[in-house]
Amino acid sequence: MYTESIEMVEVAPRDGLQNEKTMISTADKIALVERAIAAGARRIEVTSFVNPKAVPQMADAEAVCAGLPRRDDVTYIGLVMNARGAARAIETGRIDQLGAVSVATDTFAKANQGQTSDGSVAAASEIIAMARQAGKTGQVTIAAAFGCPFEGEVSEDRVVAMAEALAQANPVEIGLADTIGVANPAHVATLVARVRAAVPAIPVRVHFHNTRGTGLANVWAAIGAGAVTVDAAIGGLGGCPFAPGAAGNVSTEDVVYMLERAGVRTGLDLAALVAANHWLGSVMDRTLPGMVAKAPPFPRPAQA
Amino acid sequence: MYTESIEMVEVAPRDGLQNEKTMISTADKIALVERAIAAGARRIEVTSFVNPKAVPQMADAEAVCAGLPRRDDVTYIGLVMNARGAARAIETGRIDQLGAVSVATDTFAKANQGQTSDGSVAAASEIIAMARQAGKTGQVTIAAAFGCPFEGEVSEDRVVAMAEALAQANPVEIGLADTIGVANPAHVATLVARVRAAVPAIPVRVHFHNTRGTGLANVWAAIGAGAVTVDAAIGGLGGCPFAPGAAGNVSTEDVVYMLERAGVRTGLDLAALVAANHWLGSVMDRTLPGMVAKAPPFPRPAQA
Repeated sequence: MYTESIEMVEVAPRDGLQNEKTMISTADKIALVERAIAAGARRIEVTSFVNPKAVPQMADAEAVCAGLPRRDDVTYIGLVMNARGAARAIETGRIDQLGAVSVATDTFAKANQGQTSDGSVAAASEIIAMARQAGKTGQVTIAAAFGCPFEGEVSEDRVVAMAEALAQANPVEIGLADTIGVANPAHVATLVARVRAAVPAIPVRVHFHNTRGTGLANVWAAIGAGAVTVDAAIGGLGGCPFAPGAAGNVSTEDVVYMLERAGVRTGLDLAALVAANHWLGSVMDRTLPGMVAKAPPFPRPAQA
Repeated sequence: MYTESIEMVEVAPRDGLQNEKTMISTADKIALVERAIAAGARRIEVTSFVNPKAVPQMADAEAVCAGLPRRDDVTYIGLVMNARGAARAIETGRIDQLGAVSVATDTFAKANQGQTSDGSVAAASEIIAMARQAGKTGQVTIAAAFGCPFEGEVSEDRVVAMAEALAQANPVEIGLADTIGVANPAHVATLVARVRAAVPAIPVRVHFHNTRGTGLANVWAAIGAGAVTVDAAIGGLGGCPFAPGAAGNVSTEDVVYMLERAGVRTGLDLAALVAANHWLGSVMDRTLPGMVAKAPPFPRPAQA
């Protein structure tokens, strides 16, 4: 039933840091990317190109890009919301992939991007086209796919219809995001399967927050339903400034612990991730939400 | 694939409190049981009858029992490790079901109960027989079924063989416990299915700790494999004093949130559980690990 390996995207540098009150330096952001690469990460969401007044944590996007390690084997993703952001990302010369966002409800789309849900589909389609024209790749994430902080339940039909509309723009991937951490594994399994059936040529990525403790259960269900890529943040950092109560992303090290022990290869090194958690916690001056980094290693050598 | 309903056992009064540094009063323990019942709990592990020098948190077992609400519709479980404990539990006249413990590895069995793994199977069988003779029911939990803090990996064959041996004593249920929180959902699905196949007449209960963030994923996998009862503790309290690093049980309110939203009925009321979490946190004077109680309610009424 389960795949032998999945791909992970490290999102701590963007989604992880975006909602933290503690602003960290550009140098520390670059160090975080370097630690992720050292731990095995090969796709990393490094920053977003958005209005610095709305998201001051990402105001140094160009400076972060200028300091990224030059690695042919790493895909750097920049999150963009519109054509202006896409142009900025392309202009850096360091972003390999543009990540667009479409939002499943009008109310959340207006709060997040100042447009309707359909408008966010159109914007994402334009971004994907711009990426391709610039010789980059473009992908899109459907935000609030499992529930909206303003409107409540989100219909699966709506998300499937969005995936079909977005597929017209030929993204290299469609992501389904539980932006506010309300998903349950039954819903996840159903929606991932429906999107796969609707757009079978396009790989499905998933993005979960552990706001209500269900993050890893949702990861497991998504993989079982055919998702091939999982977003996660070192330390379980992150949230969304426009989603009240949203807690951290699923923790990269917790996801890797679960999957590697379950026989699903991630390409990541758990000990290096735990060390990165501890380092990042010292930078942020707090204990991060991830659980594995607080627990003793297992299995350990026999002591009896 | 998934059942429409499952049974939950509230274990906060015993496994939840047993490893807490904060000793709470007998009156507060009884109030915790009352709150669990008010939230819908109908099986509750109320205390253990063990050496008070080893587990001082449970030294008031008889006093807790004397104060339990008289409810014909609630099954009160007392945890016992040997015949002496079983006699104490029966003597109270208030314990409906004895819960025995067998340990999957010799090293852990010696640390936990001063005997071998086989010795713990024999002791559990004796306890189950004593329960039946006293007109009560007896069940057993296989501890460290998914990993041992001393020996590391535990073979599935060993756990299945223990289940077969324990089945000779006719327990009303066999529990599989991830005592130290190292299980992954693939292992859980396989072991639950193997035990069910080995002893098809005996219902399987599962008991997970969220030490490494995988607790709810394991609950979901266990139910998918046919487990019909899930242990959980309000607030995610708990651990084991003999298992280094063991963090809390899965949180009752987090499990209920996940299952009820997934369409699996638990018989429990989420709002009452969240209130119980907040009350218990005030008693313990700390924020408890459960996540749902820290998050805003969802779904909420439309606000747009």
